[in-house]
Amino acid sequence: MDMMSRIQHALDQQLGRARSPSAPPRLMAAMRHAVFPGGARIRPQLCLAVARACGEDAPALTDAAAVAIELLHCASLVHDDMPCFDDADTRRGQPTVHKLYGEPLALLTGDGLIVMAYQALAHAGAAHPLRLAGLIQTVCDGTGAPDGIVAGQAWECENRVDLGQYQRAKTGALFVASTCAGAQAAGADPQGWRALGECLGEAYQVADDIRDVMLQADQLGKPAGQDAHHGRPSAAANLGLLGAIDHFRGLMQAAIDSVPECPSRGAMRQLVLHESERLIPQSTCDRIERERRAAPAASHVVA
Amino acid sequence: MDMMSRIQHALDQQLGRARSPSAPPRLMAAMRHAVFPGGARIRPQLCLAVARACGEDAPALTDAAAVAIELLHCASLVHDDMPCFDDADTRRGQPTVHKLYGEPLALLTGDGLIVMAYQALAHAGAAHPLRLAGLIQTVCDGTGAPDGIVAGQAWECENRVDLGQYQRAKTGALFVASTCAGAQAAGADPQGWRALGECLGEAYQVADDIRDVMLQADQLGKPAGQDAHHGRPSAAANLGLLGAIDHFRGLMQAAIDSVPECPSRGAMRQLVLHESERLIPQSTCDRIERERRAAPAASHVVA
Repeated sequence: MDMMSRIQHALDQQLGRARSPSAPPRLMAAMRHAVFPGGARIRPQLCLAVARACGEDAPALTDAAAVAIELLHCASLVHDDMPCFDDADTRRGQPTVHKLYGEPLALLTGDGLIVMAYQALAHAGAAHPLRLAGLIQTVCDGTGAPDGIVAGQAWECENRVDLGQYQRAKTGALFVASTCAGAQAAGADPQGWRALGECLGEAYQVADDIRDVMLQADQLGKPAGQDAHHGRPSAAANLGLLGAIDHFRGLMQAAIDSVPECPSRGAMRQLVLHESERLIPQSTCDRIERERRAAPAASHVVA
Repeated sequence: MDMMSRIQHALDQQLGRARSPSAPPRLMAAMRHAVFPGGARIRPQLCLAVARACGEDAPALTDAAAVAIELLHCASLVHDDMPCFDDADTRRGQPTVHKLYGEPLALLTGDGLIVMAYQALAHAGAAHPLRLAGLIQTVCDGTGAPDGIVAGQAWECENRVDLGQYQRAKTGALFVASTCAGAQAAGADPQGWRALGECLGEAYQVADDIRDVMLQADQLGKPAGQDAHHGRPSAAANLGLLGAIDHFRGLMQAAIDSVPECPSRGAMRQLVLHESERLIPQSTCDRIERERRAAPAASHVVA
């Protein structure tokens, strides 16, 4: 089974485990809507890829780690889309959960997905008790306070924000959890895999900032210009578009360089390059560079 | 240290663990506001009492279980108070989190508290790996889908609701988790303690329904008449006030009868009786019965 099919299957199985005649049907439908069809699934892919690189020996635990991380990511999107944050009508080209099911169920959908992430870990972790506590700590570190995605999102409610700290928490932390949890699910030391998560997480956030100002809403599958609209810190606003693109490329190279020596180093490198191209195609970078160099005075004005 | 001081200390310690110069200060303050000063802490008390009854041998793990359950309870209150649910201005006589910190931070406070519950379990569970998976499953069962408090809350968004199922999920599930987690933290089989949690949970919900129609807002510390206002299922509406009071008393007796034979059976009985009196004082029951028997035709009209 290829990596993407494996992830979709594991997510489907986990949602299936919560199916019960006693479950409120609209909540279950809303939770499924938040998870499927889904986006690029880059975090769980990363988790799986690192587990393989570490000589994966407990596939069900790897699946659970990947599932937990994707469920937590989906939960954060559902809450992030709600009226009190982005008030987004669409996500991945579909109506957001609160648009389709209302605010109360969107709130509960996010909560339910967070809990489900730990259900997945506990279910698979019972057979690997010595790996479970570390895995849960890693996943919590990527999600909660003081430095996980919840904290990252909360920086938007502070008067003074450090851009790096905000991005590390809002996006980087769950990428770090993805690589570290992949290693831990395979019984390996996660420390050597932190840098890969850190670089990719920062690159992903920078790419998101770039795309937010660069692309039209129909290409993003969600409303564009949200960062400026909500006055949020943004690398594209801070560095200018060309500066942000340079920064993105440097981070992707650092991500590749950080991969520890292992038999599947080539495959990891390919995954990172593929992701880089998916986020900001090389052709787009080249076009913007040409345009901006032809009109240097405008290089800090966002498109 | 008495049980209540032990719980407050353990909660304070867990919140302290998330303190960091890199944490967003308003989120941390909002999370603390959601947890302190707190209410009766009946769930963590129950957890501790059952652990003691089972010959508690891992106090840090018991504390973590009690803390996790209380944090999840507080998280559900924060989200429940938000404008898309109860839109409550006060809770425990204090402004609600969203009133004090705004909706975005209230949403994130709930999320952060849910994650923190699992942080607490993973932190203490590392030293007791064989108990951790079961504990986490128990706590998840009480919280998520299909039958935990998130599901219970979600029944309010369905067109057809079974009152028993709704109450078992919304309130009962976390009481069951409290007693079962107490047993598991002590390395004991949780099954014998389920009934205690079930009876107390149902009694607590019935008491809440009774108090919602019976007491003034200043006595509750939160707005009264919320169930009728929001059209929620309620035992007091279904059975009438006298019927609901009878039901409450029966459940409290069943809770006492369910306690397994153990050296601290007397102490458990005292805890239940004390809680019963705290929820619906005997003097109040007697007064209402006298009044209603004097005017029998009005016995189904709520005060």
